[in-house]
Amino acid sequence: VNARIIAVLIGICLSALVNAAEKPLTMADLLAKSQASDWREPEAENTLYMELATGRVIVELAPEFAPKHVANVKALAREKYFDALSILRVQDNYVTQWGDPNAEKNPDRARKIKNAKKTLTPEFEREIDSKMEFTRLADGDLYAPEVGHWRGMPVARDPKSGKMWLAHCYGMVGAGRDVAPDSGGGAELYAVIGHAPRHLDRNVTLIGRVIKGIELLSALPRGPAPMGFYEKPDQLITIKNVRVAADLPSEQRTKIEVMRTDTPLFQQLIEVRRNRRDEWYVRPAGKIEIGNVPIPVRMK
Amino acid sequence: VNARIIAVLIGICLSALVNAAEKPLTMADLLAKSQASDWREPEAENTLYMELATGRVIVELAPEFAPKHVANVKALAREKYFDALSILRVQDNYVTQWGDPNAEKNPDRARKIKNAKKTLTPEFEREIDSKMEFTRLADGDLYAPEVGHWRGMPVARDPKSGKMWLAHCYGMVGAGRDVAPDSGGGAELYAVIGHAPRHLDRNVTLIGRVIKGIELLSALPRGPAPMGFYEKPDQLITIKNVRVAADLPSEQRTKIEVMRTDTPLFQQLIEVRRNRRDEWYVRPAGKIEIGNVPIPVRMK
Repeated sequence: VNARIIAVLIGICLSALVNAAEKPLTMADLLAKSQASDWREPEAENTLYMELATGRVIVELAPEFAPKHVANVKALAREKYFDALSILRVQDNYVTQWGDPNAEKNPDRARKIKNAKKTLTPEFEREIDSKMEFTRLADGDLYAPEVGHWRGMPVARDPKSGKMWLAHCYGMVGAGRDVAPDSGGGAELYAVIGHAPRHLDRNVTLIGRVIKGIELLSALPRGPAPMGFYEKPDQLITIKNVRVAADLPSEQRTKIEVMRTDTPLFQQLIEVRRNRRDEWYVRPAGKIEIGNVPIPVRMK
Repeated sequence: VNARIIAVLIGICLSALVNAAEKPLTMADLLAKSQASDWREPEAENTLYMELATGRVIVELAPEFAPKHVANVKALAREKYFDALSILRVQDNYVTQWGDPNAEKNPDRARKIKNAKKTLTPEFEREIDSKMEFTRLADGDLYAPEVGHWRGMPVARDPKSGKMWLAHCYGMVGAGRDVAPDSGGGAELYAVIGHAPRHLDRNVTLIGRVIKGIELLSALPRGPAPMGFYEKPDQLITIKNVRVAADLPSEQRTKIEVMRTDTPLFQQLIEVRRNRRDEWYVRPAGKIEIGNVPIPVRMK
């Protein structure tokens, strides 16, 4: 009997092995086997909704990296600063930018900032805090000594300087500025819609990441003027409004969850993306760049 | 007198130095000082025009990397295979893909391939040829032992295996395939419209690069079905036709020039992009990833 049990067990093991060899895990498998604890709800107080005629763009804010800018953008949203302002610029393979079309051209007619600050000192980097989660990528990075994820956001670190900063990957949102580093404040924002322009890292303050609706910004007509600016008033795309999610009644909030990036499941996700073994692939890359790591979201 | 001349010369040198320190070279400066010999005209025989209602997409082909696929795509264009076919798929931050909407769903009604081949063996990589120009990037690459440019195209190399291959950077064009590596042939093509999906390198055959008009592919509505496929016939975007430039009369060809990538000027361009010293930048990156190197074009 013992011999038969052992034989059966060996059989089960063998078939599991064969099965594993035949059907390696994919991201879809990981999503299917994910538990409630693998997901988190973004804080409503740190979530922005930008409403366009085409739908809602949802930005998760990162006050841990840019506390002053995040507070100021929320103050701007709360004084309805962005309502009926415009998308001003769409530069192919680079950024979509929004704000007040009159800000520079017709300062007299520009939207007035009431309670929020007009400009802020930059928040290009911050101290590394070892208590903050950081899921480091094994394959390194061309631009920084270390990269990884903190709460779904791409983060670069330099242990030597003791600093860390958000990295300009697809969907990241920043506060535009003029030549002076302290000339931005969040009244003009941009989202990355192309190959990660990492040379912008630590040159401009990032405030968060688009977690839903990036295609409402990335599929817009490119502006004809240099740097993708729209030339004529009728090219501008109107922003209905920008709101802090916490200020909306619960039924008007989007019930979204973002995959946690401090879990064994996320480590597995990185691995199945480093080595794509879906049957279509003949040669897994064996590496992954931070710009190619997806952060899944799901509707509750 | 000699002392005065020396003093004047020193003065000139100093002011030049100060000037250089104040106004470092930018890409615009390099373009302005470029000579005719810094530019080249793509060969008409290896240039494709895809005509959309919104304009012309120009693809420079790379027969040196994918001779069979390039020949076949030209044969398909010459038998008017692509005329009135469609853009089928636009997946955000990934690819725009075009071909025959009936190919899989209604094979009976699918466009017939006359003289061209239906499928080809893959051309994922080729032997390194030291006689071919290769302007290697100093900062390396996460995915390959070496990367650089050959005639305006991003190329990866592995000296150990003796192989090189085109790299999936923004604007690169490839021949879609099914699960079998030899199931593609160029009847379905795609262009990269997002962060370089380098994990596709050597998994699918690249045939060239969009040198003009990528925004006609990247700003299209994203498809609603999984992987960005359009769901309904009226979402499909019609391709007027695809032609080899050499088959059009000279006056119908676009007079375009691409910057040569085997010149001292291009080396300078890489350097001014590795270290952006335009006055806006406060911290030059000191590095550049192949996906961030621009290849300028100009109209003649």
